[in-house]
Amino acid sequence: MQYDLVIIGAGPGGYDCAVQAAALGLRTALVERDALGGTCLNRGCVPTKLMLGATASIEELQAQAKVKIAQGHIDVDWSALHSRKEKLLAGSRKAMAAKLKTTGVDLYEGHARVLGPGRVEVSAETASVVLEGTDLVLATGCRPSSFPGLTPDGDAVLDSDAFLALPEMPKSLIVVGAGFIGLEMAQVAHRMGAQIHLFDALDRVAAYEDPEVSKTLQSVFRRWKWKVKTGVKVASVVTENAAAVLTLEDGTRVEAEKALIAVGRRPNTEELGLDNLDVELRGPGWVVVDDHLRATEHVYALGDVNGRIQLAHAASDQARYLARLLAGKIDTPYASGPVPSVLYGSPECLRVGVMAEELESQGKACRVTSSPWAANPIAQAHAATQGFVKVVWHDDRVVGITAVGHDASRFAAAATIMVRDAWTRQQAEELIFAHPTLDEALMHALLDE
Amino acid sequence: MQYDLVIIGAGPGGYDCAVQAAALGLRTALVERDALGGTCLNRGCVPTKLMLGATASIEELQAQAKVKIAQGHIDVDWSALHSRKEKLLAGSRKAMAAKLKTTGVDLYEGHARVLGPGRVEVSAETASVVLEGTDLVLATGCRPSSFPGLTPDGDAVLDSDAFLALPEMPKSLIVVGAGFIGLEMAQVAHRMGAQIHLFDALDRVAAYEDPEVSKTLQSVFRRWKWKVKTGVKVASVVTENAAAVLTLEDGTRVEAEKALIAVGRRPNTEELGLDNLDVELRGPGWVVVDDHLRATEHVYALGDVNGRIQLAHAASDQARYLARLLAGKIDTPYASGPVPSVLYGSPECLRVGVMAEELESQGKACRVTSSPWAANPIAQAHAATQGFVKVVWHDDRVVGITAVGHDASRFAAAATIMVRDAWTRQQAEELIFAHPTLDEALMHALLDE
Repeated sequence: MQYDLVIIGAGPGGYDCAVQAAALGLRTALVERDALGGTCLNRGCVPTKLMLGATASIEELQAQAKVKIAQGHIDVDWSALHSRKEKLLAGSRKAMAAKLKTTGVDLYEGHARVLGPGRVEVSAETASVVLEGTDLVLATGCRPSSFPGLTPDGDAVLDSDAFLALPEMPKSLIVVGAGFIGLEMAQVAHRMGAQIHLFDALDRVAAYEDPEVSKTLQSVFRRWKWKVKTGVKVASVVTENAAAVLTLEDGTRVEAEKALIAVGRRPNTEELGLDNLDVELRGPGWVVVDDHLRATEHVYALGDVNGRIQLAHAASDQARYLARLLAGKIDTPYASGPVPSVLYGSPECLRVGVMAEELESQGKACRVTSSPWAANPIAQAHAATQGFVKVVWHDDRVVGITAVGHDASRFAAAATIMVRDAWTRQQAEELIFAHPTLDEALMHALLDE
Repeated sequence: MQYDLVIIGAGPGGYDCAVQAAALGLRTALVERDALGGTCLNRGCVPTKLMLGATASIEELQAQAKVKIAQGHIDVDWSALHSRKEKLLAGSRKAMAAKLKTTGVDLYEGHARVLGPGRVEVSAETASVVLEGTDLVLATGCRPSSFPGLTPDGDAVLDSDAFLALPEMPKSLIVVGAGFIGLEMAQVAHRMGAQIHLFDALDRVAAYEDPEVSKTLQSVFRRWKWKVKTGVKVASVVTENAAAVLTLEDGTRVEAEKALIAVGRRPNTEELGLDNLDVELRGPGWVVVDDHLRATEHVYALGDVNGRIQLAHAASDQARYLARLLAGKIDTPYASGPVPSVLYGSPECLRVGVMAEELESQGKACRVTSSPWAANPIAQAHAATQGFVKVVWHDDRVVGITAVGHDASRFAAAATIMVRDAWTRQQAEELIFAHPTLDEALMHALLDE
């Protein structure tokens, strides 16, 4: 089979690239060994959001209970949630398959192995086929990492895939890794009543965010009675008598019903036949790409697997670029606009552009203005007044926006625009923000008032 | 007492004007007969949002119950909510008073009456004082209207002020007027378990919005088992045996525990001594202003009372303009950027810029692109998939955005920017929207995909 473009991996990046390339006239093949939508749809962002949405009422109730306005109880039927989740995800996959059909993308289900430049073998259970493509795009994504001593065993010690598939939430949960994946899943379990034990080797939770964001999160977690230990080394997490047992390097032991290992992710580049191509891999196997997202002549890599940034919408943006590049519509290097990064749940975190610390470490002048959630009527209405939004300025232009607190993700689109277009104070002054909204916290931060 | 500026009314508009005029060096007096913050803070937007926030868990639970994922019960303690509301509002008023002090605004508590050009008498209970001001700003706002037969009696027939002060929510509620005020308050009562009977003389609910918005709202209300009658004339609503009894012109009678009359608002311009000024009033007393918001020489009117638009953030924008104008910083006519309008609750509505119908009625070419909530993972997560966002284009530029559905107000800031800056498709293509967010519905609408 002869194609202009063969894409391996039908996660958000590979799928978007296929649809857009086909729309631009390229004969396109898309290969997927598992399920359309990849990690994001099937084992990542989307199922987590379905769980956070299904339990949102619990969090709202607990907040109102804390200020003595509401009381009650809510039972979430986890198996009903699983069934609904499967139904919704199947619906999304079906819609994706239909779209591939209408745009003329050929979908191949099976395991892809590169035989050599322009040649990909797809093996399904009973048959295999060789696809020939002028260009090849690797969009195989990544999967949970483990370390010696921190190896999910499918019993009480789980990776994020296994956590999301649990038939019910545990009564207690050890979470190793206080990054966004660990924190979102911990929130789900917390809402369902689990005692959370959170560990991170770095000295604060969400350690790649603004230090004040970490501080606010830690303060919320303390209120929730989470047991948080940062700056500690975990020696091992193992299943003992059907329970998860964590041992710190100092010998401290913590036991819980389950443990989630969320210490990072590694690229899916084994068994792909990449040794048959002149492609450079970095670290555990990230595909090194140049400024055109090219790994070698006629071979490109997009999304998580190129090791740039692990966010579905970043992969989609790279996908749009590659589709145009390969269709001959553009030949400029890839230049990403600012990519919003969101921790979901309640509180949420949003970050777009640079943080003050980053600028300062580069020796660049930087001014920070901010506004707290506390005085905002919508934050007050939800009894969720811990939080703030911070605007980072350089040369009197907005270069970064960071927020933490109830519904902080609602700034995502506006903040991305402000950073992309490097807003001035005057642009902010001229914008009318609706009252009363959380948006006014962003306004107050922008206007430093 | 001699001032550069005397402002009557300390709602959001009057207050913002005072603070900003004083910051620009004007000797400023602010007169308020009731409470700092005006209707918005004390009897309007903010208390309603506190009630919607306090009951948000009920709505979230009901949505999940409908898809059989959650069950439970939530009791909201209405008197605890009232106490918390009073405490929060008092805190806001205190912060406003402190800000007036630090910016050097003199606050006069009492009833203002204009004696003649540049002279305002302020009468408090035991004393009165005459203020002299070079310029006078009227910012007295408005209050609920009534019509013959539709007169709140303080018993079972209430205006919005009295509804918000109810010591508990009724078991059944008649709402006359399906505008935003009526709809938000009906939602609060609905969440607390009231059977809602909604009436409007116009042929649909939220009749000033896009017709499809009305349709979506009506469909949600039907699901909630509201009894909605539009296109009907109410002959009377009266208290009979401590209950509210509504009679339609066709003789139909409906009884409920309480009735809320939300049929519009009228300006606070009586007893102000405006006959001592050469000021023109329109209709029930709206102050007519020119393109500099000027009613007559040295007399200006901002916010609801000038009859332009009844939104707090519009008043604040006019206030910023007037402070600068009167401080001599600008002399251009007032030109408002697009003003976002929001119905809060769940579903929410957002509108900014023009609607397709408006353009079409002007004979202007118009293209509409839209995207439904149904396929959005966040809408699915909240089991709230009724809704859509619609983008109105003219000459390939965004001129209006309308949305209805769960959390639709989160588009407010971004949509206002897009309309203000008349975005092209390319600008939208270059923006990275976070995945998964409701923002992606806006993205799909913009990209017509």
